[in-house]
Amino acid sequence: MMAHTPGAHASPEMEQCIQNCTDCHHICLETIVYCLQMGGKHAEASHLTTLLDCAEICQTSANFMLRGSTFHGRTCGVCAEVCERCAQECEQMSDDAQMQACAEACRRCAESCRQMATMA
Amino acid sequence: MMAHTPGAHASPEMEQCIQNCTDCHHICLETIVYCLQMGGKHAEASHLTTLLDCAEICQTSANFMLRGSTFHGRTCGVCAEVCERCAQECEQMSDDAQMQACAEACRRCAESCRQMATMA
Amino acid sequence: MMAHTPGAHASPEMEQCIQNCTDCHHICLETIVYCLQMGGKHAEASHLTTLLDCAEICQTSANFMLRGSTFHGRTCGVCAEVCERCAQECEQMSDDAQMQACAEACRRCAESCRQMATMA
Amino acid sequence: MMAHTPGAHASPEMEQCIQNCTDCHHICLETIVYCLQMGGKHAEASHLTTLLDCAEICQTSANFMLRGSTFHGRTCGVCAEVCERCAQECEQMSDDAQMQACAEACRRCAESCRQMATMA
Repeated sequence: MMAHTPGAHASPEMEQCIQNCTDCHHICLETIVYCLQMGGKHAEASHLTTLLDCAEICQTSANFMLRGSTFHGRTCGVCAEVCERCAQECEQMSDDAQMQACAEACRRCAESCRQMATMA
Repeated sequence: MMAHTPGAHASPEMEQCIQNCTDCHHICLETIVYCLQMGGKHAEASHLTTLLDCAEICQTSANFMLRGSTFHGRTCGVCAEVCERCAQECEQMSDDAQMQACAEACRRCAESCRQMATMA
Repeated sequence: MMAHTPGAHASPEMEQCIQNCTDCHHICLETIVYCLQMGGKHAEASHLTTLLDCAEICQTSANFMLRGSTFHGRTCGVCAEVCERCAQECEQMSDDAQMQACAEACRRCAESCRQMATMA
Repeated sequence: MMAHTPGAHASPEMEQCIQNCTDCHHICLETIVYCLQMGGKHAEASHLTTLLDCAEICQTSANFMLRGSTFHGRTCGVCAEVCERCAQECEQMSDDAQMQACAEACRRCAESCRQMATMA
């Protein structure tokens, strides 16, 4: 395998973490719009802020890994915390499909980010 | 309710365009590091600026589509132009695998963004 | 060497536009939280999406100008449109201080972005 | 003074930190282009990656503070580390005005981010 094929600098664990961050970023952005449309407790400021935080730190962490940055373990550490909180809030919000799918993506992202933070 | 499964607000064309923007964003970030490591003409300021522009507008366009924004056609229009330029620069740079893969991702993204810009 | 003092590549008009985009980005992020806390029509999905769009395109346009990108006129063109819409929505929302301050920042940003788009 | 004037939720220290992050983000983006134009050791991949990391985490930390996020202390903690490294690299690079101005902005940002991380 050539040294410069796309993503060749990343380990399989990092590749998976980049994908999990990307998936989590995407579903959080969709869930923000969903929660605003639902209104009520879904649209409370504290929950929306968590979703916005989660979307942004996932994007930032993915970008640090894509650049092969030496600081990726640090951004992944913060990302794991924010994702964990977001997963809890989404789970407790309601049992509708969107919130559960978002919670699941956040958990998956939190887990692989914790792994990256430990390994770095 | 089926309408709120993740991404349910997006057409198949938009889903594909989000994926193409995401892929193009990712490979541009990797190519930036690759070009800096190669040095010489790969690392010229004008080329690196194009890659940075391309990565950022792809990210922004994907985010507009993920929010179901009414302005996504406008960001996709700009994205198509920047991707087209980036594809040309990468193609002409050299025939190594990274540059060719980046050019291909940029072309694919440019094409679907042009489609989104026209449909919007 | 004078040519390389920070921002030396930017004209006074561009420097002003970067500042206006930055100010507009900041107040939009604050207004998002304010609107969520207010609830009701302030927190409608369509208005929040406009504020999120406005914050993001202002950030992107500022970054293109800071890089001295040849595409900055194109991002500024989209930014002017989104800011204009955001200003209208904020003005019509209510006459409280936050919404009026946000509308004013959006108008100022729209105007200088239109100027950049025409000059580019 | 009304509770909802722009930035009213932020303490003076946080307001200052948002400004320092914004300034640091701006000068890092300009320094990236400057370093690419200078070439040689200025344009080494490891240094450019640090500048890109620094620009991005400053932007993310500013956004967390602007949203009044409960996680802002965590993003500021990472930001302080990245800014500190960036300051060191810029200082050691050369004594030209751009690198020294960038190092100074990074130091100022690192200091206020450390303060925010401790207070949070």
